Amino acid sequence: MRGTIIYGTRDIRVQDRPDPAIVEPTDAVVRTVAACVCGSDLWRYRGIAEVPAPTPIGHEYVGIVEVVGADVTTVRPGQFVVGGFLTSDNTCPHCRAGAHSSCQRSTGYDGCQAELIRVQNADGTLLATPEHPDEALTPSLLALSDVMCTGWHAAVCAGVRPGHTVVVVGDGAVGLSGVLAAAQLGAERIVAMSRHPDRQVIAREFGATHVVAERGDDGVAAVMDLTDGIGADAVLECVGTQDSVAQALQCARPGGMVGWVGVPHVTDLPQQHMFWRNVGLRGGPAPVRAYLPDLLTRVWERRIDPGKVFDVTLPLDQVAEGYAAMDERRAIKVLLRP
Amino acid sequence: MRGTIIYGTRDIRVQDRPDPAIVEPTDAVVRTVAACVCGSDLWRYRGIAEVPAPTPIGHEYVGIVEVVGADVTTVRPGQFVVGGFLTSDNTCPHCRAGAHSSCQRSTGYDGCQAELIRVQNADGTLLATPEHPDEALTPSLLALSDVMCTGWHAAVCAGVRPGHTVVVVGDGAVGLSGVLAAAQLGAERIVAMSRHPDRQVIAREFGATHVVAERGDDGVAAVMDLTDGIGADAVLECVGTQDSVAQALQCARPGGMVGWVGVPHVTDLPQQHMFWRNVGLRGGPAPVRAYLPDLLTRVWERRIDPGKVFDVTLPLDQVAEGYAAMDERRAIKVLLRP
Repeated sequence: MRGTIIYGTRDIRVQDRPDPAIVEPTDAVVRTVAACVCGSDLWRYRGIAEVPAPTPIGHEYVGIVEVVGADVTTVRPGQFVVGGFLTSDNTCPHCRAGAHSSCQRSTGYDGCQAELIRVQNADGTLLATPEHPDEALTPSLLALSDVMCTGWHAAVCAGVRPGHTVVVVGDGAVGLSGVLAAAQLGAERIVAMSRHPDRQVIAREFGATHVVAERGDDGVAAVMDLTDGIGADAVLECVGTQDSVAQALQCARPGGMVGWVGVPHVTDLPQQHMFWRNVGLRGGPAPVRAYLPDLLTRVWERRIDPGKVFDVTLPLDQVAEGYAAMDERRAIKVLLRP
Repeated sequence: MRGTIIYGTRDIRVQDRPDPAIVEPTDAVVRTVAACVCGSDLWRYRGIAEVPAPTPIGHEYVGIVEVVGADVTTVRPGQFVVGGFLTSDNTCPHCRAGAHSSCQRSTGYDGCQAELIRVQNADGTLLATPEHPDEALTPSLLALSDVMCTGWHAAVCAGVRPGHTVVVVGDGAVGLSGVLAAAQLGAERIVAMSRHPDRQVIAREFGATHVVAERGDDGVAAVMDLTDGIGADAVLECVGTQDSVAQALQCARPGGMVGWVGVPHVTDLPQQHMFWRNVGLRGGPAPVRAYLPDLLTRVWERRIDPGKVFDVTLPLDQVAEGYAAMDERRAIKVLLRP
């Protein structure tokens, strides 16, 4: 099969690799219908995270089950499935508590930007669609593999409830998904912090009622202006830098909550914006399998269209261009077709 | 009247001071029935926090309303009242959201370890008992002025629910109150982390099912042992040091929550125990007025007895001995009688 390998900074190649096979009886092999590039993949692409050796890459996918191991009971060959960016058994104590990203048997993947994918813990990871989806639904189903569940997790961690004022820091695919999640959870006012006109358009389509283009102190001041000096009930932190975390905490009202899903590159959590204002911080890698049943239903019934975050589609062989487009912000998120 | 002044490190004196009077029409003056010494008062007593000039001290009290300003409508002279460690108007946007400790009109006190206290924002701060309480109820009512509401806040911020396993870090008056709060909120297992036999006794009386005497890594290991390697659903951080916050975060299960009420003396919030394990942190100064109606009812109906944390009672004139007793851990918490 063809699969993507990262060799080092800005060195991404598609090459022939051995077909994956069933190793454990709980495995499945999935033939990829669509995969994509994640913002977190860019850390290695940009050289910010190390690439000690050539490594298969990618962790988001939808596809058709090709074969399953002897112990797999909930999916079968021929079904269209979505899986999360980590595998989970959906039965261990952490999964039963909804913390699937800390599953005791959690694994990653040997690269999902590829034609075939070995999925460990298949029963606890994959969810099949009721039938094969319309082609037009593929991007929204693919979004459930990571970004939509991650934006949803931010909203859940921030405790978004009907009537809330919600601020979303970050206008990448996760931030936009967070806007959509906040709207679905009943937020009354949703402030998207975004400087990019194309992303502002999607934010509005997803339910943002306000857009704030300023960042840092100016961004906080703009949010305070919009909220009569009170701040937001809930803030979704979807970037992960020192500045964005500080901005998120400062946008929250006293007693408010920040849902934190931007992969952290933070030197020092700014506690001065937390304790004395009773602003909380909660989040981490999304427990995709916990949210999949609900979100798959919402996509299937056309109540949400999270696939709008994919603004560029490329054949798998052009994956390097996909990374470059996202790196240079020519694309919000790139969908890959094997 | 007689009132307590802190002059500097280990220099606490009771002296004659002018009687407080109504200044704003929203004020009340309360004749103190009981006051007490707070763990947070010890920061200045020990010289860890500065005392730039002689300062009236104390922020916890119960008493009888002596006189009220023209705009006060909810309490009247002669009533027995409890007030929180900060005043609040109970009507501003922050109070309406339950964040009374960030009330837009919040004030402190000109020293509550005194015979008379001026209470600003009297309507939004004081709560009267249904009638004058039995003498035996005074300590438990006094506990509502700070420690019991603070322990309750820790449990609320940690999201304690029926069936939960809860760890309480800290066996001071606040930590013990946190044990009681967790029990009232339905926790199934409550692990008190305590090294002091006298405090362990109260923790058990308040509902602790387990006591762990170890601290730091050993304490975390003991909690993990007790929870089959899973960790606690909710952790109450009632100390505020770097080590205790790290210990609290590590005791939480993935997806768990730490309620944070120990006044922070933390150099660097240990984010390594947070994001990748989805462990959240939320807390700050307790919104006393938000919890007072419920907790006053629980005390009045003898369902809780938070006054057990007072193990030493002294006349106000011996306040210096009260500070020394708490400083040297000869007392958990000292009740003062004017």
